[in-house]
Amino acid sequence: MDFFQVQTTQQVKEILKGLTPLGVENAVLEDAVGRVLAEDIISSEDFPPFNRSVMDGYALRAEDTFGASEGGPAPLEVWGDVRMGERPSIAVRPGGAVKIGTGGMLPEGADAVAMVEHTQLIDEKTIEIFRAVAPGENVIQKGEDLKNGEKILEKGHRLRAQDLGALATLGKGMVRVYRRPRVGIISSGDEVIPIDSVPHGGEVRDTNRYTLWALTLEAGGEPFHLGIAKDELGDLQRKLEEALYKGDVVAISGGSSVGTRDLTIEAVGSLPQAEILLHGVAVSPGKPTILARAGEKVIWGLPGHPVSAMVIFMTLVAPSLWRMGGRKDWDAPQSWSLRAKASRNIPSAQGREDYVRVKLDLEGGALVATPIFGKSGSISTMVRGDGLIRIDMESEGIQEGEEVEVWPF
Amino acid sequence: MDFFQVQTTQQVKEILKGLTPLGVENAVLEDAVGRVLAEDIISSEDFPPFNRSVMDGYALRAEDTFGASEGGPAPLEVWGDVRMGERPSIAVRPGGAVKIGTGGMLPEGADAVAMVEHTQLIDEKTIEIFRAVAPGENVIQKGEDLKNGEKILEKGHRLRAQDLGALATLGKGMVRVYRRPRVGIISSGDEVIPIDSVPHGGEVRDTNRYTLWALTLEAGGEPFHLGIAKDELGDLQRKLEEALYKGDVVAISGGSSVGTRDLTIEAVGSLPQAEILLHGVAVSPGKPTILARAGEKVIWGLPGHPVSAMVIFMTLVAPSLWRMGGRKDWDAPQSWSLRAKASRNIPSAQGREDYVRVKLDLEGGALVATPIFGKSGSISTMVRGDGLIRIDMESEGIQEGEEVEVWPF
Repeated sequence: MDFFQVQTTQQVKEILKGLTPLGVENAVLEDAVGRVLAEDIISSEDFPPFNRSVMDGYALRAEDTFGASEGGPAPLEVWGDVRMGERPSIAVRPGGAVKIGTGGMLPEGADAVAMVEHTQLIDEKTIEIFRAVAPGENVIQKGEDLKNGEKILEKGHRLRAQDLGALATLGKGMVRVYRRPRVGIISSGDEVIPIDSVPHGGEVRDTNRYTLWALTLEAGGEPFHLGIAKDELGDLQRKLEEALYKGDVVAISGGSSVGTRDLTIEAVGSLPQAEILLHGVAVSPGKPTILARAGEKVIWGLPGHPVSAMVIFMTLVAPSLWRMGGRKDWDAPQSWSLRAKASRNIPSAQGREDYVRVKLDLEGGALVATPIFGKSGSISTMVRGDGLIRIDMESEGIQEGEEVEVWPF
Repeated sequence: MDFFQVQTTQQVKEILKGLTPLGVENAVLEDAVGRVLAEDIISSEDFPPFNRSVMDGYALRAEDTFGASEGGPAPLEVWGDVRMGERPSIAVRPGGAVKIGTGGMLPEGADAVAMVEHTQLIDEKTIEIFRAVAPGENVIQKGEDLKNGEKILEKGHRLRAQDLGALATLGKGMVRVYRRPRVGIISSGDEVIPIDSVPHGGEVRDTNRYTLWALTLEAGGEPFHLGIAKDELGDLQRKLEEALYKGDVVAISGGSSVGTRDLTIEAVGSLPQAEILLHGVAVSPGKPTILARAGEKVIWGLPGHPVSAMVIFMTLVAPSLWRMGGRKDWDAPQSWSLRAKASRNIPSAQGREDYVRVKLDLEGGALVATPIFGKSGSISTMVRGDGLIRIDMESEGIQEGEEVEVWPF
């Protein structure tokens, strides 16, 4: 039963490597932001497809301006102008210039643009240039942005605003993206009631339904609700089966007490092809976490305490969703973390990874992290917090003034 | 004409203070993530509404365990158990204990819970406790999470996953949120063609349509398209009027060349109640930026170069959308920035704020920012980048090794 030993997050990540992307679909650019690319994007042309002016001014031969200055301007003959969006009908010959706007196509013979601010119109046909321009100045060269044959974006990359811009430049109005994992959300426990009910006796409202919903969206998943399961095998089984039928992943929260946890294990174990992969992680808060597979479907059993459920979702469930969603950097979806100084000592037990909620403040330009202590049943500790810090398994805690990595939320 | 002097971002922010939130609507919790609260949230009860166990174990009087140890355990009589979600029917008297699960309501008389791991069942009616528990141990007190009368969330706060959790705990399934600004997107210029067309002569595909779409979504707005306006007053006016009729804000890109810029100004000026507030900002890239109002509606004229348009959107347009969307911290929507060391000198001109695209790398645990130089017409410089750094107006640049603030994108 070595299998059911409490495992470290590193070991869980190893398990998650066994998950594979779900499938591929098409998305139009407007719907593609935040989606994960399922194809490499390679430019089949040079962009810009021609040498283009980046300023308003005069297209000319740079060598005709060499030595030009305020005191000794270079006179040039103006032979016409470039119309926006059109191929210039005239070429630039020695001693000549052609008027051009920002974005205009450089005429044949021209290799630079003099900014209009550095010129003076002498008569209809003549300008004077007050400053020498270098070859290529104020010009974006053919292929300088995107080169024919260049890989612009890679399969597994999550699309940002600028990536849509690059796709638009290439004329790709539709891209192949990975399908989002559909995540069924179940809350369990006899004490859990819908939020529009008034709690009596020992009842509590269903908080996890909403936190897990929002976290699923953030992790690129599509959440759907199964409602509250009573502490009764049949009810749990029915909801699990429905969730797996409709979705790819189930997130059941609750079951922090031994009885409910056993029930979750029993319900999961009764599914066809079910295989329990994890039963307990060396993470605080969040130890009583379950991970199972049933065929290609994934089941997460999360702690009932709202903070514990959120911490496990952020540290383990989100990476599993990104992995199934095809993301290359699934393991570190939040690529960059903040650095702050601890405002006080933060104790931690060895042998487990601790996640501590912190409040961030700017003091003299530097970030200071103050731990928010409080029980994992207290959602307010997350509400007052700005982020989480991770304390390593080997560490006995953080010293006041020590630098910590903060994962903002 | 002092009015049309190039203005600093600080001056633009002052102008933006004149914008007011658009209005208020209701949102159910599932749709409320990322939305901005339009009401203060005050708890009208204590949560939890009762003292609740956070462990599986035995509810008891802490004083009955004082002095208990492995060698000298304290024996207690078990009087029954607490059923989840129900008010316990039994009280704890001296020398007694009641079995309780995680989340259970503490019976009258009990002030602590001994973890099941620190107890041993002697017979059906008796347990031994091996470790003293302190009063309150393993119990979350009534009101410890949310207190009656306490302000939990403030008007103007952008809702995160945990905030939905707090609202759920309070039983608020519907909240008042600010309406999102509707942003009409227009690209302008005779050279701009739809992305499904093949560019001929000096034509370029419409990149800004998609980058501005995605950035609007990120800034809490609702984008809609007006398409491409030709460099012709009538066409621009018609599109502007349609956008203002349907939306709250217009973002016109293009018009980086003097002629087009003048046309944009002319079209904006012809709108009823139009008032030009800004014509040029001391920001690079992005100088030729226009801001105007027509009644309560806002018009942004953005540079045509994709990078310039994105920089101005991120630094000025996004704050204006957050401001109209009711957000308290509209001015700094990205609260925390990363700190990195510059890998090389980054020159900058005094008298303007420079935004430089950088690539981030982790070197020995520290972030290193390497500038990506390239023209503002090159969308690839944004694609290859991980963020922007801002170089102050007064600065002549960044020295190699100097610490910089990075705004990740």
